Amino acid sequence: MKVLRNGRCVDYRAVWFEKGLVKMIDQRVLPASFRVFTAKTLSDNEFAIREMVVRGAPSIGAAAAYAMAQAVIQKKVRIESAAKRLKSTRPTAYDLFYAVDYMLESIHEGKDPVESAMNYANSIIDECIQIGMNGAHLLKDGCRVMTHCNAGALATVDFGTALAPIRVAQEQGRKPFVFVSETRPRLQGARLTAWELKNEGIRHVLIPDSASGHFMKNGDVDIVITGADRVAANGDAANKIGTYEKAVLAKENGIPFYIAVPRSSVDTGIKSGDDIIIEERRQEEVLKINGKLISANGVKAKNPSFDVTPARYITGIITKNGIFKPSDVVREFGNRKR
Amino acid sequence: MKVLRNGRCVDYRAVWFEKGLVKMIDQRVLPASFRVFTAKTLSDNEFAIREMVVRGAPSIGAAAAYAMAQAVIQKKVRIESAAKRLKSTRPTAYDLFYAVDYMLESIHEGKDPVESAMNYANSIIDECIQIGMNGAHLLKDGCRVMTHCNAGALATVDFGTALAPIRVAQEQGRKPFVFVSETRPRLQGARLTAWELKNEGIRHVLIPDSASGHFMKNGDVDIVITGADRVAANGDAANKIGTYEKAVLAKENGIPFYIAVPRSSVDTGIKSGDDIIIEERRQEEVLKINGKLISANGVKAKNPSFDVTPARYITGIITKNGIFKPSDVVREFGNRKR
Repeated sequence: MKVLRNGRCVDYRAVWFEKGLVKMIDQRVLPASFRVFTAKTLSDNEFAIREMVVRGAPSIGAAAAYAMAQAVIQKKVRIESAAKRLKSTRPTAYDLFYAVDYMLESIHEGKDPVESAMNYANSIIDECIQIGMNGAHLLKDGCRVMTHCNAGALATVDFGTALAPIRVAQEQGRKPFVFVSETRPRLQGARLTAWELKNEGIRHVLIPDSASGHFMKNGDVDIVITGADRVAANGDAANKIGTYEKAVLAKENGIPFYIAVPRSSVDTGIKSGDDIIIEERRQEEVLKINGKLISANGVKAKNPSFDVTPARYITGIITKNGIFKPSDVVREFGNRKR
Repeated sequence: MKVLRNGRCVDYRAVWFEKGLVKMIDQRVLPASFRVFTAKTLSDNEFAIREMVVRGAPSIGAAAAYAMAQAVIQKKVRIESAAKRLKSTRPTAYDLFYAVDYMLESIHEGKDPVESAMNYANSIIDECIQIGMNGAHLLKDGCRVMTHCNAGALATVDFGTALAPIRVAQEQGRKPFVFVSETRPRLQGARLTAWELKNEGIRHVLIPDSASGHFMKNGDVDIVITGADRVAANGDAANKIGTYEKAVLAKENGIPFYIAVPRSSVDTGIKSGDDIIIEERRQEEVLKINGKLISANGVKAKNPSFDVTPARYITGIITKNGIFKPSDVVREFGNRKR
């Protein structure tokens, strides 16, 4: 992805491997600061995933793959133990489990772990580019797209899932316009998606999360595209809290609602969204902004990090193979046992 | 309303008149600070309404009534000019226009302006108490109510509209539980509603705006009640941005959605919500929190302060006279010409 640093345009990935170290853009401090976080140990990697130094389901998967490779090289913990520790960092995004299982299999097959992890990360980017090519057909000239949270390059090693069709439409000269919802409590829309779109020169505007319905009702939105952290066999999809609301509002207003995902986010081992564990994060993420309380002392908050959008609200799923209906998840991806 | 100051419980109104001065709780700085703002001139009153020192449709109306009384006493501007200036401070809440017209009429009839303004403010509180008595019937033991923004004592001189049934249910020992959505960008839910509920000892929890649908879908919410800034003849209602989303999500999940309003918020002079002017406030309200940018430099934002909920999503309107359907607005309030 394009990053402007000291007046120069530099190409970055969200996460990469360098001389035995797992490196990642520190997504906690963007856009005010641009910092690279270096994970030297398994504990560093656990911290980075849990505390959202790296975030976005596919980027979490790639970070976990590199962390597994590092654990093999360092030989300080048993590889099964490393796998277990990484899998317990966050519960919702399937990519984390998919990537760790992929690495366990590669390691047991005697493949080079660093090469395997790099292949994993590269394949995510390849998928994202294909998602972009497939999804771009949905975007007409000047198309007004609404998205939520960040399903861009930062979330997917590079290029993005939900943002991929927008990037391709932009490259093809179709000048898309993006409604970016700020995505409280951690403001990934305001902080990360707007930053990516600005770096790419793609037209956009930031809105409060709760203004989404207003713009849909007023006819200002042509299509909604988000990512997803886990897609169940029946097509139900978990994604950042607020996605369900956008899907319902899109349906109510006759606006198509798409999710864009790589293979690693699809979990056909579970029947429906009811089986997806929704991560509940610290209430301080809601109660404090920049370290300052937004509510009276002693007020409690709820902070579910994801919600589940039932398949009936999803117009289509954009993948590297094309666009299909949520009811076709098993046909497309097979009925994989976990 | 109960306010805890220096360990003592003091009773306050949101706005009042004292020795020729319009006084109001400064709602911009709550709950971190408790300050009383004093409006000495018409300009001070214009500033207070425009900058939301005082906010909430009924409180704005009362502040404007007191400002008119002050203008009569001070004799520095013609009364029609004062009326015009006050009416141009904010466009959406009908109470502002209703209160100023009420004062113009009283003044032309030769009534005492201060007494008229006080009567106006007192009648709002009387209505709120009646709204509370009528609406409390909807709340069973342990009822879980969702609200948005602040339609409490701060918004209505005292007691509240949406919060009034909750206050009464609490007094009647029915222990309601309130989901308070934070209400970006100005966080009236987080700052004001949670503060009021805490002062009253009413159980509550703060949630991000976009988590509302998640809790509704999960069966955690029994009823949604909000205020409204303007109700049209057909029952469409303008209220804080995000209200429309909650109404759609409530309907989708089979949860009743009510609005609670005094007479002064009802504008039967307009046919539908299409005729309501939606205030667009400064984009800085979205882009900055506590003076700090939440997005990259140069990102633009949209900040519509209200949205319109079509009557078909509104289960009922709670007023001092009872609860009725949105289609009965004209029957209840008459077809008042403006």
